[in-house]
Amino acid sequence: MSEVKQQTAEQAPAFDAERAREDFPILLEALPSGRRLVYLDNAATTQKPLSVIEASDDYYRHANANVHRAIHTLSQRATQQYEACRDKLAAFLGAGSRDEIVYTRGTTDAINLVAQCYARPRLQSGDEILLTELEHHSNIVPWQMVAEATGAKVVVVPIGDDGSVSIEDFRAKLSDRTVIAAFAHISNSLGTVLPVADMIAAAHEAGAVALIDGAQAVAHLPVDVTALDVDFYAMSGHKLFGPTGFGALYGKRELLDAMPPYQGGGDMIDTVSFSGTTYNDVPYKFEAGTPNIAGAAALGASIDYVNSLDLAAVFDYEHELLARATREMEAIDGLRIIGTAPGKAGIISFVMDGVHAHDIGTLLDESGVAIRTGHHCAMPVMERFDVPATARVSFALYNTQADVDALIAGLESIQRIFG
Amino acid sequence: MSEVKQQTAEQAPAFDAERAREDFPILLEALPSGRRLVYLDNAATTQKPLSVIEASDDYYRHANANVHRAIHTLSQRATQQYEACRDKLAAFLGAGSRDEIVYTRGTTDAINLVAQCYARPRLQSGDEILLTELEHHSNIVPWQMVAEATGAKVVVVPIGDDGSVSIEDFRAKLSDRTVIAAFAHISNSLGTVLPVADMIAAAHEAGAVALIDGAQAVAHLPVDVTALDVDFYAMSGHKLFGPTGFGALYGKRELLDAMPPYQGGGDMIDTVSFSGTTYNDVPYKFEAGTPNIAGAAALGASIDYVNSLDLAAVFDYEHELLARATREMEAIDGLRIIGTAPGKAGIISFVMDGVHAHDIGTLLDESGVAIRTGHHCAMPVMERFDVPATARVSFALYNTQADVDALIAGLESIQRIFG
Repeated sequence: MSEVKQQTAEQAPAFDAERAREDFPILLEALPSGRRLVYLDNAATTQKPLSVIEASDDYYRHANANVHRAIHTLSQRATQQYEACRDKLAAFLGAGSRDEIVYTRGTTDAINLVAQCYARPRLQSGDEILLTELEHHSNIVPWQMVAEATGAKVVVVPIGDDGSVSIEDFRAKLSDRTVIAAFAHISNSLGTVLPVADMIAAAHEAGAVALIDGAQAVAHLPVDVTALDVDFYAMSGHKLFGPTGFGALYGKRELLDAMPPYQGGGDMIDTVSFSGTTYNDVPYKFEAGTPNIAGAAALGASIDYVNSLDLAAVFDYEHELLARATREMEAIDGLRIIGTAPGKAGIISFVMDGVHAHDIGTLLDESGVAIRTGHHCAMPVMERFDVPATARVSFALYNTQADVDALIAGLESIQRIFG
Repeated sequence: MSEVKQQTAEQAPAFDAERAREDFPILLEALPSGRRLVYLDNAATTQKPLSVIEASDDYYRHANANVHRAIHTLSQRATQQYEACRDKLAAFLGAGSRDEIVYTRGTTDAINLVAQCYARPRLQSGDEILLTELEHHSNIVPWQMVAEATGAKVVVVPIGDDGSVSIEDFRAKLSDRTVIAAFAHISNSLGTVLPVADMIAAAHEAGAVALIDGAQAVAHLPVDVTALDVDFYAMSGHKLFGPTGFGALYGKRELLDAMPPYQGGGDMIDTVSFSGTTYNDVPYKFEAGTPNIAGAAALGASIDYVNSLDLAAVFDYEHELLARATREMEAIDGLRIIGTAPGKAGIISFVMDGVHAHDIGTLLDESGVAIRTGHHCAMPVMERFDVPATARVSFALYNTQADVDALIAGLESIQRIFG
C-alpha cells in the first residue's frame, strides 16, 4: 500500500466492518462444525446483505409479473422495479444515460455480447484483439472464439514478475490493426490494479476501442466510466453483494446504436414479420426474452446498500486489512505470495512449500476458513508463474482482523504439519 | 374440449385449486385498491409458491458461494443445490441423461443457443428453416438472424382459421433442404396445442431435426422428450412457477456433443492457453460464467412443487376451467374469441366490438383482474387474423371459478359501457 493511501486511511473515519457483518445473515450463523464462517472467497462471489435477499423475496411476494408488456397493476410494479435498477446502475457507474446500461447475465455474458456484436462484424483477417496475460478466461475465450471466426489475431501484453501490467508494454503491443483492447480493472487471480485510464487513452490513440472487465472492481474501487472514457465496461451483480445470474454492460451510446442485436426474441424488436423484422432501440435491442426481473430488483437493492456506506472509508479499510494480512502471511515460513504489484486490491494468491494448494483449502475449511484454490479461471497466469495452482484469499468489506487471525492460525498449523 | 377429455375429468379425483392458492403468497394479499387479485396472465409469467421463494432465500442465507471451483463447505453446498436441479429437470422432461440438460436464461436463450450453435454452422445458402405462423417472436427472430448470416431461408407453415396447425400443411412445407423445424408445443397467443409428435416424426423423415418451444407447455402438459423423440426442447423456469432469468435446453447428447460452444468463459473450458483452448464436456461446454445458482435452487423447488401435485388432475381441472370460461365468454355480445382449435390449452385470446384491447385491459385491471393485451410477441398471428391486438386470458392451476366469475363480470360491464 502506498504512503498516500496510508495517509488517507488515517484521516478518514474508520469503517465499522463489525457493524456491517450484521447486515449479512450467512456471516451470523455457525457452520455445521459449529465454527464461525470465515469467508475469504469474495473474488469468487460476495455474500448478500439482508436487504438484497429481501428485495428478491419481496418482488416474488408482491410484484411478480412480466415487464413492459401489460398495463395491469402487478406488471407496472414489476416494470418499475426492473427499470429502477438501470437508473441506479447508470449513476453507480457514472454513465451519461440509462440507455447505455444493458442488462446481462453477468460479466461473461457482457463480454461475449461485445465480442459477437461489436468485434465480430468489424474484424478482418489479420486484425488484432489486444488482451493481457492476467485476464480471466471470460476475457480470453470469447476473443479466441471471435478470432477463430474472423481470422483476427489475439495479441497478449505480458505481465511483470510482480504481476503488474506496464503501460509501456501495453503501448508496445498496440498497432494500427488493433480493433479492441480488453483488460481487467483488477486481476482476479493476483489482485493487480491495472493502469486502466492510461491504457484506455493509449488504445484510443491507436484507433482502438477499450473494454474493461470490471468483475473484481465494482465492489472495491470507485468506477466512473465517463471519467475513464472507456467504451465498454462489464460487471456482475453477484460480486457486488447482489444476485447470481444478473449483471450489466455499460457501452457508449453511439457504439451500442451501431451494433447488431445479440439474441433474437421478445422485447428486442420493434416489429416482427416474416417479410422483415425491425429492432427496438438500445438498450432493449440487446435484451431478448423475459428478463431476470427478480435479479434487477435485488441488484437495485445491492447498489442501494453500497451507496449507504462511506465507500472511500470502505476502500481504505480493505487496503489496511490487505496490508496487515500480507505482512502476517509473509512471516510464515515457506509461504510465497504470487502477485506483489504496488497498489493491489484485496486479493492474495499464494503457494506453500511442500503443500498442494488443494490441501491448503481443505485444511483451512476444517477450521471454518473458506478460501479458493486452483487456477482461478486464469490458467495463463498459472503458466506465467510456473505453478499448477495457487491458494487465494480475497477480502470484502465485512472481513475483519478476526478473519485474518483465523487465516493466519490455520496457515501456521498447516506449516507446522507440512513444513 | 374433446369428449375423451371430459370423460377423463369426470373420472379423475378433482384437483383442489382453492387449496393450491394458499401456497402462493401473492394471491393471498389484497391489491392497493383493496380488491382480490384475479391473476389471469399466466402465459406471461406464473406466480411462485412459498417453497420457491424460500428456496432462493435459503440459498442466499445458508449456501451462497460460487459453484464447481472450490472445496470449502459453502461451495459444496451451493454446487449440490445447483446440480440437483439438473437431475430434477432431466426427470421432469423425461431426458435420458442429466448431461442433456443445459441451463439457460430461459426459452429465448435456449432457442438462440440452438440457432447459433446447431443451425448456423450447418446452414448453407438456400437451406431451409421451417417455422409455423403462430410462433412467438423468440422462435422467429433467432432464425431470421441466422438465416441472414448464412443465406438460408425461413419457410412458414400457415395456420388455419381456428388457429390450428395441420400436419398435412407441415409436411407440405418440409423439403430436402429443411435443416431444422422449430415450433411451439402450445401457442402463447392462441392456446393451440400443436401435433408435435407427428411433426417431429415428419421432420425426421425429411432428414431435419426438430426443436420445440416448450415455454407454454411445461406447466400445462406432461412432457416426455424421449417419447417425443424431439431433438431440442426449450423451456423457462418462470412459466413453471419458478424464478425469472433461469431455464433450460434439453438436447440429444450426440447433437450437443457435436456443437461448438455458445459463449466463452469460465466453467465451459477444459484448458485455456493463448496457444489454444480446449472445451469442457456437455452440458458445461454451454454454460460459461458464474451461473444463476439461486435460480437453480428455486427452479429445483418449483419442480418439487409440481411433482407434489397430481398433474393429471391439474391438467383436467385447467381444461374444465377453460371450457367453462370459453362458454361464458362466447355468450357476451360482441366478444369474439380468436383461436378455437380443438383440444386447446388454457389460453383465450379475444376482441370486443368497439373496444380497443388496451381499454379492456385497463378496465379489467380496475376491478382487480390482470390479463394481457397487445400482440403477445406474436405479431404474425395478429396479422393473420387482421387485428392490431387481442386481449388474452391465461390460466394456471391456482385459478378458480371465482376468477372466471370476476372476469365475466368485468367483461359484461365493459360490454354495457361500450356495447
